[in-house]
Amino acid sequence: MKPTHIEHIGIAVKNLDEAIKLYQTVYGLECYAVEEIPDQKVKTAFFMVGQTKIELLESTDPEGPIGKYIEKKGEGIHHLAFAVNGLAGALDETAAKGVMLVDKAPRKGAEGLNIAFLHPKSTFGVLTELCEKP
Amino acid sequence: MKPTHIEHIGIAVKNLDEAIKLYQTVYGLECYAVEEIPDQKVKTAFFMVGQTKIELLESTDPEGPIGKYIEKKGEGIHHLAFAVNGLAGALDETAAKGVMLVDKAPRKGAEGLNIAFLHPKSTFGVLTELCEKP
Repeated sequence: MKPTHIEHIGIAVKNLDEAIKLYQTVYGLECYAVEEIPDQKVKTAFFMVGQTKIELLESTDPEGPIGKYIEKKGEGIHHLAFAVNGLAGALDETAAKGVMLVDKAPRKGAEGLNIAFLHPKSTFGVLTELCEKP
Repeated sequence: MKPTHIEHIGIAVKNLDEAIKLYQTVYGLECYAVEEIPDQKVKTAFFMVGQTKIELLESTDPEGPIGKYIEKKGEGIHHLAFAVNGLAGALDETAAKGVMLVDKAPRKGAEGLNIAFLHPKSTFGVLTELCEKP
């Protein structure tokens, strides 16, 4: 595996509308999409900064993964996503090197990407996502 | 302000050498520099992924900012750094919009960059750095 770039950075927030305001009015970034992902119990807002997206995540359910994360750790950077070519192969290679996977095979994520998460216990506390354009 | 790209992502780790191995052998990234910053009580290792650096941070002192962070929150993503043009002006503008600053004026950071941190209380829990090439 060799990631081509950082595809996005996921940030857990309590209130999406208030967080969007910061990224728009202070950082001068454009919110180009808002998407609800019922499967993940989140509502997301996207901003482009160079090659990388900022993905703000508000939980739509306190029992969802972002809701639980905020309850445990507070708001903040939730995960880091690398863009890779050949996601299925990269996952096999990663597992063969002893890294624990959350997703053993690619699944559909936001914006139609194929995605998979590595387990933060194997990545020094960083919840790491691998993404590939279908 | 309008950031041109994400300059780096700072990741707090307990053991720099072990974390370097993950980024090299699993992700296939090259560690192009290791730098000690006595002022910040950290040893850092840098990797390039597209436009963005991954900056691994090991504390050289339990009382340093990274040591305290790991004690409180564990290993993981510590901060997010935007590259901007006109850092001093961007800081004034940011403060005028009501954002609390950690650094009211630019100071020297790793790799000779001029840097300043915004306060995470104003940025929904994300410790945010602004950087400019001198």
